[in-house]
Amino acid sequence: MSEGTAAGVVRGYLSDNAAGASPEIAAAMTEAAVGLASPCGSDDVSKRVGARMAEVFEHPVDVFPVGTGSAANGIALATLTPPWGSILSHPDGHIANDEAGTPEFFTHGAKITLVDGPNSKITPEALRAAAVYRRGNLHSVQPSVASLTQAAETGSVYTVAEIHELSEIAHEAGLRVHMDGARLANALVALEATPAEMTWQAGVDVLSFGATKNGAMTADAIVSFDPSLRTELSYRHKRGGQLTSKMWFQSAQLDAYLTDDLWLRNARHANGMAERLRARLALHPEIEMLGDPRANIVFCSFPPMLIDGLHGRGFAFHADRWGPGVVHLVTSFAHQPEDIDVLLAAVADILG
Amino acid sequence: MSEGTAAGVVRGYLSDNAAGASPEIAAAMTEAAVGLASPCGSDDVSKRVGARMAEVFEHPVDVFPVGTGSAANGIALATLTPPWGSILSHPDGHIANDEAGTPEFFTHGAKITLVDGPNSKITPEALRAAAVYRRGNLHSVQPSVASLTQAAETGSVYTVAEIHELSEIAHEAGLRVHMDGARLANALVALEATPAEMTWQAGVDVLSFGATKNGAMTADAIVSFDPSLRTELSYRHKRGGQLTSKMWFQSAQLDAYLTDDLWLRNARHANGMAERLRARLALHPEIEMLGDPRANIVFCSFPPMLIDGLHGRGFAFHADRWGPGVVHLVTSFAHQPEDIDVLLAAVADILG
Amino acid sequence: MSEGTAAGVVRGYLSDNAAGASPEIAAAMTEAAVGLASPCGSDDVSKRVGARMAEVFEHPVDVFPVGTGSAANGIALATLTPPWGSILSHPDGHIANDEAGTPEFFTHGAKITLVDGPNSKITPEALRAAAVYRRGNLHSVQPSVASLTQAAETGSVYTVAEIHELSEIAHEAGLRVHMDGARLANALVALEATPAEMTWQAGVDVLSFGATKNGAMTADAIVSFDPSLRTELSYRHKRGGQLTSKMWFQSAQLDAYLTDDLWLRNARHANGMAERLRARLALHPEIEMLGDPRANIVFCSFPPMLIDGLHGRGFAFHADRWGPGVVHLVTSFAHQPEDIDVLLAAVADILG
Amino acid sequence: MSEGTAAGVVRGYLSDNAAGASPEIAAAMTEAAVGLASPCGSDDVSKRVGARMAEVFEHPVDVFPVGTGSAANGIALATLTPPWGSILSHPDGHIANDEAGTPEFFTHGAKITLVDGPNSKITPEALRAAAVYRRGNLHSVQPSVASLTQAAETGSVYTVAEIHELSEIAHEAGLRVHMDGARLANALVALEATPAEMTWQAGVDVLSFGATKNGAMTADAIVSFDPSLRTELSYRHKRGGQLTSKMWFQSAQLDAYLTDDLWLRNARHANGMAERLRARLALHPEIEMLGDPRANIVFCSFPPMLIDGLHGRGFAFHADRWGPGVVHLVTSFAHQPEDIDVLLAAVADILG
Repeated sequence: MSEGTAAGVVRGYLSDNAAGASPEIAAAMTEAAVGLASPCGSDDVSKRVGARMAEVFEHPVDVFPVGTGSAANGIALATLTPPWGSILSHPDGHIANDEAGTPEFFTHGAKITLVDGPNSKITPEALRAAAVYRRGNLHSVQPSVASLTQAAETGSVYTVAEIHELSEIAHEAGLRVHMDGARLANALVALEATPAEMTWQAGVDVLSFGATKNGAMTADAIVSFDPSLRTELSYRHKRGGQLTSKMWFQSAQLDAYLTDDLWLRNARHANGMAERLRARLALHPEIEMLGDPRANIVFCSFPPMLIDGLHGRGFAFHADRWGPGVVHLVTSFAHQPEDIDVLLAAVADILG
Repeated sequence: MSEGTAAGVVRGYLSDNAAGASPEIAAAMTEAAVGLASPCGSDDVSKRVGARMAEVFEHPVDVFPVGTGSAANGIALATLTPPWGSILSHPDGHIANDEAGTPEFFTHGAKITLVDGPNSKITPEALRAAAVYRRGNLHSVQPSVASLTQAAETGSVYTVAEIHELSEIAHEAGLRVHMDGARLANALVALEATPAEMTWQAGVDVLSFGATKNGAMTADAIVSFDPSLRTELSYRHKRGGQLTSKMWFQSAQLDAYLTDDLWLRNARHANGMAERLRARLALHPEIEMLGDPRANIVFCSFPPMLIDGLHGRGFAFHADRWGPGVVHLVTSFAHQPEDIDVLLAAVADILG
Repeated sequence: MSEGTAAGVVRGYLSDNAAGASPEIAAAMTEAAVGLASPCGSDDVSKRVGARMAEVFEHPVDVFPVGTGSAANGIALATLTPPWGSILSHPDGHIANDEAGTPEFFTHGAKITLVDGPNSKITPEALRAAAVYRRGNLHSVQPSVASLTQAAETGSVYTVAEIHELSEIAHEAGLRVHMDGARLANALVALEATPAEMTWQAGVDVLSFGATKNGAMTADAIVSFDPSLRTELSYRHKRGGQLTSKMWFQSAQLDAYLTDDLWLRNARHANGMAERLRARLALHPEIEMLGDPRANIVFCSFPPMLIDGLHGRGFAFHADRWGPGVVHLVTSFAHQPEDIDVLLAAVADILG
Repeated sequence: MSEGTAAGVVRGYLSDNAAGASPEIAAAMTEAAVGLASPCGSDDVSKRVGARMAEVFEHPVDVFPVGTGSAANGIALATLTPPWGSILSHPDGHIANDEAGTPEFFTHGAKITLVDGPNSKITPEALRAAAVYRRGNLHSVQPSVASLTQAAETGSVYTVAEIHELSEIAHEAGLRVHMDGARLANALVALEATPAEMTWQAGVDVLSFGATKNGAMTADAIVSFDPSLRTELSYRHKRGGQLTSKMWFQSAQLDAYLTDDLWLRNARHANGMAERLRARLALHPEIEMLGDPRANIVFCSFPPMLIDGLHGRGFAFHADRWGPGVVHLVTSFAHQPEDIDVLLAAVADILG
């Protein structure tokens, strides 16, 4: 695979899902290909992943490997809301924008209600109002689950205290808390928090555990901290077409991902690449740094000639979605400092 | 991975999804892990798989990789029936028995109607009646799609002529034809037919193309021969949580699977192992061969002491589902003649 | 309205839903049309119906008026089964045959599993097996609710003891019990049981309370004996498009229906008409009485010339569905003894 | 029924669905109760309603009686959008606010996207942008149908020219046009337009035809101007639990509603009552008239003491939803000039 690279330089910043996979994960797949195993999750590797996740999160967990983060979100949310419920999401939420109705499909038509706040993060005030909006009113969908994206879409990160507060508001109003952790590891290393602190200790009920964007191939997982949801999650997972017969090929990825902190190392690396980029871009007066990105995302405003110039030189990144001139660059475990420097040199060159 | 093996001998015959993966496929994954690629199917490997499939089937096709055969069936069927339709399936059909309502989920509640016939195959007579059952009657679900499993669950195989006839009956009644090809390659080599002959030339509209059971890791695909279904399939595939961002990791498997006829070689091998087993088991008067298996399945009746004896020696196979004493053994690319012979020796030993 | 009548004689026996409505119910509607009322069930008549139902059933109940029995069944069943559940129904069940997938729609794709028995009634043996079929097996839909039709489609009636036994089997296996009471009153008077004895005392959790077939216009109701289901039923009822703003027009029908035992008087009358018909038809050696009808249904076998002859003289009834020559005649509150005698005279005349 | 009245004076202005029913409609029900009829819409009255609707709209139509406007909207929208589609609605739309997810239920999870504009009416500019928003982008729901409420929730009315323009924008972008006509007659008489001019001639594909709020009991209808939708509407109507067996009781209401222009007379009367109220309220400097109401709705701002005072004297109306002090009063065929004058006198008295 060599798309998005030229002369060995990675020029792709569209998303961290454009990177390949960590060598450790590829090796685990090769190893998993040998011999036989028991189907549908009863194999040894899948059991080991369950145990490892419980250790990482310092809590009993139920783990359901899935092929996409959208499926993780859909199945998790369907378990946390009835069809007549509403899912409280930030307007920037992936579930609200980029899943073509996947949550609506899995939940049988629950409604995504937008709850705003700066830097792609829901504020306590907004959640407090939304959590009780028309509660008990038969003519309205009923607030049922708050979904927090960690790290958020523009690179910001909820602090542990913020998650605590939001979860408390949700739980007090009778809602459940879901965390969309497509970039969970990037948030973890940004906060220097433990997985436990950032999830169940802060009130998260069910987690979409992302691995694909951070070095895996085709494996994410639903991680539930509430054993009372196990049966329902199991059937929704099977019925949703996500119970793979050779589950050990997903488990092998998750296993390698958690081994020797590969997931945290990859995330730390990706965050560092973004930091390197942000620090140097900020030196250009023509560039306005935006938001509050702390994970592997650079969010800023470029002059049009810079956008055009970089695109012309083969750099790939989003430059349209959040307004004119606003750009969004995502780094991954696959970017090297040299790659970043090539980009920075191009920026300097274009800006003159 | 070494479950189901002891002293290097494969003793697992529960299903072909208990085997690992072909080395060619593992190698393709390792290669795909390097570098970047474009997300969501716009990468080069995915495009190559599309072209290769068109070549293999001698027809323009739309290809949608999926993580499970259940998802392939669910999405394909949802595109071929309205929610108020009925899906005509043999009572032995995987969609009718083993998917915990996946087709009902993806189709938003279409009904699976059973259409019988010997050897797990629908008969023309039965289909002819079912295809027009209460047609146009507002009080009844409407027959909308016939789903044929090829190879069928007990190892039998529809001939090309049979598929032709069934498709013609279906199409004349206004129904669509779906083929559940979880074991497509095994049927192909059993019939010595071309992929084209056994599918679209015989009237199949949409195919669930199985690869996982025959050497892949986590990749099956929907293959559509009708371009008018492309848009609907695309959105159902995305919305069903099956559009992976790193699709090239599924495409790489499919690509290797089709390269140098790996899929046909694996299937020929698996069928041969079943044939070896069937031929020798038939020599025991205590064993009654059942059905009409031609693919990688052995279907027969064992005396209870033989079932118990084999289970006791670590052989794994299904021995309950089709009636007392009826056993179902599935061979795969991973079985070697020596493995078969170990099983046969044990049978001879137990039967005395 | 004068369809199905000629010279003042009622000749329609297709279904009891072909009759008009009792004068008491028409009068209640006229009265309800005057003045204003509170919308969506907060009106006085709706409250009175709730109280009256609790009195009739000698138990606290939640009552949800609906426009069709299919909607009652759909909403009730959706509350009693998860989408991955199965609904155990007799093959003759209205939910299995005549609702074009309404239960599948309201339940988001639960599966109707057929449980057989003579005279359209599920047997304890069959239910015992079906209630635990593949329980806990992730690959299969899970038995969740048994649905009993009372009176059954061919006119037979479950005894109170039979309902008791079936409910016990269901509850012991963790299933819920639904009663489709489209002809509830006809069963009640046939058994000379109290409403309490035949429903919650015998184990019924939720009842589809039929009124339309027995003298009402457009009103049936869901009656729940389990207060823990109230909230879910409320939202499913609203979301299913069944919460009418002028609910008092349905409540007025139910109110009149229960007043002065109109419902039981109508049912007793209809049953008597069927009894009169059965008794005299049985005297013809050419006619074979079938099944075990006790409600307002006549189920028997006619020679072809009798079917043709009666149809030719304008009598309407079903003569095809249960096999060649098998006829199904339904009487209602609207048939008079003279109507029956006109039919009997025609039979005698044709049979010569 | 005498709720909301005191000493014979109607004091209820919450909604036009709090009124009873026109005497002509009650009489039609009494007449329909006599004799037998054919079930499920094959009766003579239902056929007559179909013919009458075609005459009224000067166009062939398919008519499906339903029990609630929510069901009409749900079934109509489900026929006009795929599950992965979006329904463009004004934020004030009943489908967006007051149906607890009914459209999401019937459409299997389509998404309601808000398109704004003053006076509860979608503007052409807003629709033009929304109709092509992320069109063809697999990661987003696809704009599929624009739904216009006529008359709108705050009493304003789309002109015929406005409907024309919006429909053209929608159709050019490949969307369908739905009209939620819960108060259709009120809009018609306000515009002095013909039914044809305001619907299909202006581009409406399917209409939710409201009757209940304007004098009927329990009958609204879906009216489709596009015969290609007939089959799908039929099955969705049945499967949605809306195909009543005694359909003639709904048809009788619609028949009487259309006879001798009862519907237009009722609407003219209700609009006149609102006009009388608006004209006199506007004379009070303490009251600010809001929006652009032309139908049977008064939309204005009251000082708090006036709201409290009127509520204290038994007048019922909504005073919270659109902001503090904003009130919403709905008149109906059941209000008499004397009723209005009693309210106006109370207002004058309280304001001193």
